[in-house]
Amino acid sequence: MFVAPFKTLQDFETTLSNVPEPDPQAKLAAQDRNGLLTKPPAALGQLEDLAIWIAGWQGTARPVIKRPQILVFAGNHGVAALGVSAFPSEVTEQMVLNFQTGGAAINQLAKTFGARLDVVPLHLDRPTADFTKGPAMTEAEVVEALTTGWNAVHSRSDILVVGEMGIGNTTSAAAIALAIFGGEAADWTGRGSGVSDEGLQLKARVVSDGLAANPEARGNGIAALRCLGGREIAAMAGAIACARYNSIPMILDGFIATAAAACLQVNRPYVLDHCVAGHRSAEVAHDKMLKLLKKDPLLSLNLRLGEGSGAALALPVLQAAVACHSGMATFAEAGVSDKG
Amino acid sequence: MFVAPFKTLQDFETTLSNVPEPDPQAKLAAQDRNGLLTKPPAALGQLEDLAIWIAGWQGTARPVIKRPQILVFAGNHGVAALGVSAFPSEVTEQMVLNFQTGGAAINQLAKTFGARLDVVPLHLDRPTADFTKGPAMTEAEVVEALTTGWNAVHSRSDILVVGEMGIGNTTSAAAIALAIFGGEAADWTGRGSGVSDEGLQLKARVVSDGLAANPEARGNGIAALRCLGGREIAAMAGAIACARYNSIPMILDGFIATAAAACLQVNRPYVLDHCVAGHRSAEVAHDKMLKLLKKDPLLSLNLRLGEGSGAALALPVLQAAVACHSGMATFAEAGVSDKG
Repeated sequence: MFVAPFKTLQDFETTLSNVPEPDPQAKLAAQDRNGLLTKPPAALGQLEDLAIWIAGWQGTARPVIKRPQILVFAGNHGVAALGVSAFPSEVTEQMVLNFQTGGAAINQLAKTFGARLDVVPLHLDRPTADFTKGPAMTEAEVVEALTTGWNAVHSRSDILVVGEMGIGNTTSAAAIALAIFGGEAADWTGRGSGVSDEGLQLKARVVSDGLAANPEARGNGIAALRCLGGREIAAMAGAIACARYNSIPMILDGFIATAAAACLQVNRPYVLDHCVAGHRSAEVAHDKMLKLLKKDPLLSLNLRLGEGSGAALALPVLQAAVACHSGMATFAEAGVSDKG
Repeated sequence: MFVAPFKTLQDFETTLSNVPEPDPQAKLAAQDRNGLLTKPPAALGQLEDLAIWIAGWQGTARPVIKRPQILVFAGNHGVAALGVSAFPSEVTEQMVLNFQTGGAAINQLAKTFGARLDVVPLHLDRPTADFTKGPAMTEAEVVEALTTGWNAVHSRSDILVVGEMGIGNTTSAAAIALAIFGGEAADWTGRGSGVSDEGLQLKARVVSDGLAANPEARGNGIAALRCLGGREIAAMAGAIACARYNSIPMILDGFIATAAAACLQVNRPYVLDHCVAGHRSAEVAHDKMLKLLKKDPLLSLNLRLGEGSGAALALPVLQAAVACHSGMATFAEAGVSDKG
């Protein structure tokens, strides 16, 4: 397992400034190999770019995906008490139990695609503070959550998905997006797991009040994470940072996971170079967030579940890319005539 | 194995008029089950519709995908001698050898997603006739190819992908599309495996000459298959018809496989009800063909390889849909509180 190399938020920010680049030699070698494979040039479309991208992170011309890991973090939110979700807060813990007994969507996806699934609840009995009154977490709390996320990444994982469960967390993600990207609260507020029209208005007000109560979060990703995030969102950010620090490519999930990623990249866009967007969520502001992060999603199948499900569904696209790139014969090996 | 229930093209057309509908009871039961699973309503997006659709074809509320089959047919084309492809005709046979020794893209995809792969070359030493001079095949030839395709479907397959290899076959598919859907030759002619601007003009001329030499193909899918098709295209049509006749759901691949499917559905749109479009090919006219067939593709990743590769890449989406639908716990089973 990895051990987080930070003890304070300032350490964490320093860590983010000291991350390695992908291996340029491996990328070039993978590009060369790609040109020799038994297919017309570019006929595998985005699969070719994905394989070369993974080659860079894995530092080899023939990358593999043998040990995918899906990490699901769970946390409870003070703002849930304000009525921003269609489901009651106890569902967070009930769903953690469902993950642990194999009954949730993410369990079926992990099994189907041969991924290791780890579920990490973070102090479910201690919701974050109501961020409309002040910061959701203290520095010690957010550092603990970042550390939990960092240390949950398995050191042998060759691709990573992070997901979440937390009643109220689309409200938290919307507040983070508002703090980082600006605009109006309504631009970032969606129906989450299915609130009514009235619930949607309340939610936008809570998002707006959250930023008003935490002015230091404006334009500051790490402050936004502490003031407006949940423990599971901070844990996702920690895991995403760990993957970047250790050159593990990853697949971004939907609105909430992408908000966690967005916190890391303010003034450091390179921090998400190891991430591909797995899907475009039906949660309406996700598309806008992806565009601002310049991430083009692999899938667009109207999912809005969380749990890492959209990213997990994109895992086989990357498995396919790597399998074709590393497993196909070259024209010479197969004795196939190249383009005339 | 299935045995084709036809000996003439007229028999084949009668067969297409006598296909069963999906099971309405199983669909309703699957819809009911979907509403009970531990997720917000509709949160799995298109996965939910796909699972219910497969439930109808499999006649059970809890469908499974345990034995996916990929069928790749190969054939040679008289028009290839006119210079419509960037690759020489001998590549068809060389690639069949590559499929048989496991070196092609489709081999890696089949292995990655646990699918059985069968490769069926059709008289590669006897290209179809040059369709700019008259029909590509006699009735006996096209019936033989349809039969080969039908009989290649394994009776225990629970989902089917059909793909192709045949130097010159985007020209054949374009001529079929022109015959069935109308418009201009240029509307349906693309770069295939990568022809030059000059090659593209020649190709459009060959497509246009093909329809001029075979006026009976206009508006008649089965005549278009015989007059303008290749043996591998007719074999795909036979396999697609077999799947429909035996209620096996399938995934459509790109431009050429979709042209084969299009031949079957002229005046019989219900014949493709068991097909979902796997992907939108980079071959430019594929998107137009999908729109005319009212099939919305699951993926759009710029592939244009053939071999069934785009459909195979969509296979895990269906595997995921079925795994979630049939494997998830209900709210009651998991003890999770439903929406308040």
